[in-house]
Amino acid sequence: MKKKIVAEFLGTAFLLIGVVGSGIMAERLSGDQTAIALLANAIATGCILYSIITVLAPISGAHFNPAVTIAFLLRRELTLFTSLAFICAQIFGGIFGVWASHVMFDLNILQTSTNIYRTGQAQWVAEVIATFGLLFVIFGGLKSRPDAIPALVALYITGAYWFTASTSFANPAVTIARGFTDTFTGIHLDHITGFIIAQFIGVIIAHISLRSLFAK
Amino acid sequence: MKKKIVAEFLGTAFLLIGVVGSGIMAERLSGDQTAIALLANAIATGCILYSIITVLAPISGAHFNPAVTIAFLLRRELTLFTSLAFICAQIFGGIFGVWASHVMFDLNILQTSTNIYRTGQAQWVAEVIATFGLLFVIFGGLKSRPDAIPALVALYITGAYWFTASTSFANPAVTIARGFTDTFTGIHLDHITGFIIAQFIGVIIAHISLRSLFAK
Amino acid sequence: MKKKIVAEFLGTAFLLIGVVGSGIMAERLSGDQTAIALLANAIATGCILYSIITVLAPISGAHFNPAVTIAFLLRRELTLFTSLAFICAQIFGGIFGVWASHVMFDLNILQTSTNIYRTGQAQWVAEVIATFGLLFVIFGGLKSRPDAIPALVALYITGAYWFTASTSFANPAVTIARGFTDTFTGIHLDHITGFIIAQFIGVIIAHISLRSLFAK
Amino acid sequence: MKKKIVAEFLGTAFLLIGVVGSGIMAERLSGDQTAIALLANAIATGCILYSIITVLAPISGAHFNPAVTIAFLLRRELTLFTSLAFICAQIFGGIFGVWASHVMFDLNILQTSTNIYRTGQAQWVAEVIATFGLLFVIFGGLKSRPDAIPALVALYITGAYWFTASTSFANPAVTIARGFTDTFTGIHLDHITGFIIAQFIGVIIAHISLRSLFAK
Repeated sequence: MKKKIVAEFLGTAFLLIGVVGSGIMAERLSGDQTAIALLANAIATGCILYSIITVLAPISGAHFNPAVTIAFLLRRELTLFTSLAFICAQIFGGIFGVWASHVMFDLNILQTSTNIYRTGQAQWVAEVIATFGLLFVIFGGLKSRPDAIPALVALYITGAYWFTASTSFANPAVTIARGFTDTFTGIHLDHITGFIIAQFIGVIIAHISLRSLFAK
Repeated sequence: MKKKIVAEFLGTAFLLIGVVGSGIMAERLSGDQTAIALLANAIATGCILYSIITVLAPISGAHFNPAVTIAFLLRRELTLFTSLAFICAQIFGGIFGVWASHVMFDLNILQTSTNIYRTGQAQWVAEVIATFGLLFVIFGGLKSRPDAIPALVALYITGAYWFTASTSFANPAVTIARGFTDTFTGIHLDHITGFIIAQFIGVIIAHISLRSLFAK
Repeated sequence: MKKKIVAEFLGTAFLLIGVVGSGIMAERLSGDQTAIALLANAIATGCILYSIITVLAPISGAHFNPAVTIAFLLRRELTLFTSLAFICAQIFGGIFGVWASHVMFDLNILQTSTNIYRTGQAQWVAEVIATFGLLFVIFGGLKSRPDAIPALVALYITGAYWFTASTSFANPAVTIARGFTDTFTGIHLDHITGFIIAQFIGVIIAHISLRSLFAK
Repeated sequence: MKKKIVAEFLGTAFLLIGVVGSGIMAERLSGDQTAIALLANAIATGCILYSIITVLAPISGAHFNPAVTIAFLLRRELTLFTSLAFICAQIFGGIFGVWASHVMFDLNILQTSTNIYRTGQAQWVAEVIATFGLLFVIFGGLKSRPDAIPALVALYITGAYWFTASTSFANPAVTIARGFTDTFTGIHLDHITGFIIAQFIGVIIAHISLRSLFAK
């Protein structure tokens, strides 16, 4: 019974974050032309997430995210050595992806972001919530419906672009890689640490609080 | 045979509400910048609904909505005590979610809405239809294809943002919580009661009329 | 082998209609504010289609469309009497849905469309193709993957709003009902007959040409 | 273990291409009215891809793309004769689809594109990546989850419209056919060869590099 009450509380809280948070973001952006840019960005990200998770999950588990890898390490489902190897691959893969994007769009390969708006307490809270929510759908999905995980992660992130104030990085490898592009999705190198700390707080909260909710 | 005719009538009626209603909403909003805001808002809401229903359904049934809880109470599938506990959790969870959104977007936590446009007979009819439709997809889905319920509810609500004039609250906990934000999705505290009464009329109509259509 | 060649030809033809047709529509509409209106309209229609087909298919087959009912009659899977009853229910259900939309949006209930742009040879060709394509996904889906039919019809129509010049009515009951609204989705009463004739030509072509392609 | 590291590297690289690439495209287009046009174009293409692959896969394998057919030929899963027949059907089907679009939108049937922006090294790199990614989801999906292939291809291409600089043709038959329309999606006849060469480079890279990753 206690679990049920927690589930109804947590679910309705996320529902209202989804409704009200995305409404605030939409209202802020719709004055200029950024709204349609973020919508396309969110949809494209969801599309690629669905693809790569579906295809690669049987091989590596399809983390693509040190926060997820560390969460599995904390659950003792990965060794420390494998975790470190995964995290290196994720960081280098991420940076390689950014460089490939620059080549495709005929931009200088080596860039660092000058976007100074991705910092501050509100954004950090957003990253804690974004990362907590990501682990919530992954660990909850693993228990309730593993075959739905590609759709769960893809849709969660597409939504979280809008309902979290930080557009939901929720991923240290993505955060580092986005430091190296001075385009729409960049983050100033000085602000990466703040985001990553917030993401790890999200991992810790998720690890502690979700353990009993999704216990077998 | 009678059931088949009812199904064809009801389905085509909802189809035309979907086509014509969303067309009217789209035409009204497309003059200013609100259309893209509502589209993002609707998509983000659908995304989070799919996530929370998939993950939490095995634990609590994933109502997140007093209208749904009461509909199950009327079907005698929940006790009065559990229903009340669920409704409290939903209302407090909803308000907590609104506050978390305010923190993330660096706004005052405590707000009340000054949006005075969510009232009047047309909006109430919209809420009756929105709530009826939500229970229609839940109870119909439970009978026809339970594994599709997360997608059914998510897509129904994403569509209903557009084809009902009220943007489809269809949920008393969401309605109350949205009274406490003075942003895009707010509703003036004085207009909450009207919406909730309309939602309960939707529950009663659905309870009576759908019983035989979806009888086992 | 012959069937394979036909499948590759037909599929690639539809792919290019999807790419090029939707590109033409998008280019035409993006100058003014209509593009975002049609996008929301198309998404909302897809959402409600997925919902009503999933929920009602086990009861009536979820036609909601005289063109579909007649196609099943031609395949001798429905009696004439049932077909006529279905078609009446669809037409009256459709008009009821239009009226319900007007009530929700606080408009006069009784209207007739003054939209005079839904006529002419090009639009009729579009309706032939739209209806042919709809039956193509329904009969093909019934053979290849019946559980995917709600998604197939929903996505096909969402796409066809854009890639057919007529925004894909593809449904005589929808066409008639949309004569009775003077809003975004209306069609002048004088132009209904042209659309319905085109839709029936689509039914006949589909009936004859798809029979062997999807034979058991 | 080596395969896992490769999977994490490749997946995170694609994730960042998805995030950063679509962000660059979105930023470029959102200044004018083209962003909403490309979004509709991408969604409509995804919708038709899901439909035609689901329906026709049991008949011909649903290639609709000489790059895919040749990849299967290289894997010795198709004969040379069948491959050539498929490719002819794809090219003629594609051109037929372009002409049908012109008829529907009341345009001259015979056109050639005057769009001179689809050329240059950056665009060619984009086509190599786009084609590699398409084969990555097809061959990976065939191994990990064959029933998800219609959704995989549809979502991959919808995303790739945004995250590759070329809007992801990734298909020689589509490239040729789009030479014959002077509308939004056209490509100058002189630039077709460059795109097709890039696509074949993508096929070769995918054939060599993915073989061991997705080996049975």
